[in-house]
Amino acid sequence: MNLIDAKELARTLDAQDVLAPMRAKFDIPADLIYFDGNSLGPVTLRSREVLHHTIDVEWRERLIRSWNEDWLAMPMRVGNMIAPIIGTAQDTVISCDNTSINLHKALMAAVALRPGRTEIVIDVNNFPTDIYIAQSVADQHGLTLVAVQADEIVGVISERTAVVTATHVDYRTAQILDAPAITAAAHHHGALMVWDLAHTAGAVPFDATALDTDFAVGCGYKYLNGGPGAPAFIYVAPRLLAESSQPLQGWWAHAAPFDFELGFRPAEGISRFLTGTSTVLSMKSLEAALEIFSEVSMVDIRVKSMSLTGFFVDLFDAHLASRGFTLESPRDPESRGSHVALGFASGKALVDQMSAQGVIADFRPPDLMRFGCAPLYNSHVDVVRLVERLIAP
Amino acid sequence: MNLIDAKELARTLDAQDVLAPMRAKFDIPADLIYFDGNSLGPVTLRSREVLHHTIDVEWRERLIRSWNEDWLAMPMRVGNMIAPIIGTAQDTVISCDNTSINLHKALMAAVALRPGRTEIVIDVNNFPTDIYIAQSVADQHGLTLVAVQADEIVGVISERTAVVTATHVDYRTAQILDAPAITAAAHHHGALMVWDLAHTAGAVPFDATALDTDFAVGCGYKYLNGGPGAPAFIYVAPRLLAESSQPLQGWWAHAAPFDFELGFRPAEGISRFLTGTSTVLSMKSLEAALEIFSEVSMVDIRVKSMSLTGFFVDLFDAHLASRGFTLESPRDPESRGSHVALGFASGKALVDQMSAQGVIADFRPPDLMRFGCAPLYNSHVDVVRLVERLIAP
Repeated sequence: MNLIDAKELARTLDAQDVLAPMRAKFDIPADLIYFDGNSLGPVTLRSREVLHHTIDVEWRERLIRSWNEDWLAMPMRVGNMIAPIIGTAQDTVISCDNTSINLHKALMAAVALRPGRTEIVIDVNNFPTDIYIAQSVADQHGLTLVAVQADEIVGVISERTAVVTATHVDYRTAQILDAPAITAAAHHHGALMVWDLAHTAGAVPFDATALDTDFAVGCGYKYLNGGPGAPAFIYVAPRLLAESSQPLQGWWAHAAPFDFELGFRPAEGISRFLTGTSTVLSMKSLEAALEIFSEVSMVDIRVKSMSLTGFFVDLFDAHLASRGFTLESPRDPESRGSHVALGFASGKALVDQMSAQGVIADFRPPDLMRFGCAPLYNSHVDVVRLVERLIAP
Repeated sequence: MNLIDAKELARTLDAQDVLAPMRAKFDIPADLIYFDGNSLGPVTLRSREVLHHTIDVEWRERLIRSWNEDWLAMPMRVGNMIAPIIGTAQDTVISCDNTSINLHKALMAAVALRPGRTEIVIDVNNFPTDIYIAQSVADQHGLTLVAVQADEIVGVISERTAVVTATHVDYRTAQILDAPAITAAAHHHGALMVWDLAHTAGAVPFDATALDTDFAVGCGYKYLNGGPGAPAFIYVAPRLLAESSQPLQGWWAHAAPFDFELGFRPAEGISRFLTGTSTVLSMKSLEAALEIFSEVSMVDIRVKSMSLTGFFVDLFDAHLASRGFTLESPRDPESRGSHVALGFASGKALVDQMSAQGVIADFRPPDLMRFGCAPLYNSHVDVVRLVERLIAP
């Protein structure tokens, strides 16, 4: 398929795209082609509007009164907007802190629920912060961190395993891990499961309830478009909540924060996984961006994501494989998340050169280029333009 | 002194106030009298301007590129703006997370530096989140939490003490603790000292270097005016840094976060106390608000703070003591921080009633009204207006 035919096909696919109207909700500069939503989602019109209101009315005019009028309820409110995106019930997810901190809380809670066990199992290809955090929890408890390839996880889980943690969609390759098999293996051996949904939430369906996962954490600034450093989230299975505790038990995790009791009494619900004061501005932006997800279905998102990445893989086969690029993402669309990774020896220089021309992708050492295909705002025509630039930057 | 004379005196004092021009840097609604800067500082014109630029240019246009162009360096840059406010050297303070999380990091680091010791000493009148966090650290390490009155702290520190923590300015009474005596007592017994500067930073001078305190943490949204839920900060004495570690060792604490190494290698500097991704919007607002502090001296701030709270105490004596109010803050200005606390049986109803009329103070159960006198924007005339409302709400 030559690129002229490809663009024709792209226009046809875009015309049939039920999510196409969502693009107008984002404010992406007209001269930019953006394929880095797996790192930082673009600003929505609604986030800008809400932020201005937060600054000019809630902060400026209402000042301290806004805590009671709006802000105190926000972590739970935002959690409840994320809940359907990751397949959980209401009041089981809460927005707070960053992903690293939430993973720490989940792992510490999990390890405390499995005393006497001696190992934490982790995907060795996990995003490094997950490994650093898991190593710290292991060190604190004198446990061994067992870091193995994703397809070896099921095999190493045993009665020694306290908790298993992995990222559902690999941050480099976009490989979707076998969540049902890994979760079942953990549970079969009496271990707990913590899924990191950083590259899942908002792009790939996840059904935490059907999986019966014990904990999940995830990120607010990638496919959820919450803005740079938007708060993360944490989910705890309701069946575990009453017996779960976490070490960062600040006043927001208390059953009655404004009673100022001397002794810590954890909140009954998921807010026991809060720490201290939430970052209002950053969370407001996330809350506003999440409104889009009430208008779309995760099925439509998945269909479009597979169409975009599949189209890109087709164009890779036709135009890029012969030019020194290698496909580092799964060819099987069922196993592929919402970005495509290509190996390329001078990938860093190419990403920089393309960026100067307004085509934004990202790069992970040593030679991996990543192209996030965000179903809410990327089009098939965008994909053709991207490939044009990869061929002739 | 009747209130007509008081207002005349207030006008004279305001005319002599070297900080009076700072008020114009804040956007406080004209119909509001704001005495709650000890809870949430008002918005500055500069914060609004910077936030709009961050949203419309850095996020919208530059997108992911802003991380390298600006955002990655922000926690250290903001820390360096806070450093002179709390009397520390450059590159020893970093902005991140919230105060509860930073206190956790400081206490965990301190306890690890004093193995074999069995106690954490804390001011029992500390803000509750500090007590909850300290209790959690004590529980994790099998230590005893010794919670005593501020004036008993020096007496209970012993060779058993691993770490002492207290808030420099009491959040209820504004009592300034004897930091030199408490820090010296901790060091005399080989214990480490963690100061919480939540009600100090930006309102009361603190010289962390002269005190030789080991750690300090503090809040960005009170007298530093960073906005609701602005990031907090943490200071670690340079002499301790190389041997200090903290359990929330996310990728931002790594020596080379973007090398994506499998093993954790802590950054050499204070950034080893970072966790994961910073909240950009909230930190941008704080950074903008901190610019004011480069134009003023902490001496002038302290002089004005004492003048405002002293004037308020004078008016309390003349008008409020006879009306059922009690002074719950120290009468000695040297021992008083930047707010004044009054006991009043129907304090909650009065604060609510005044709030409806645009006079904002706050309330802490069971009967404590707090009036934050912020030297950067409160005036002596404000104080007279406040007292007028307290008399005839």
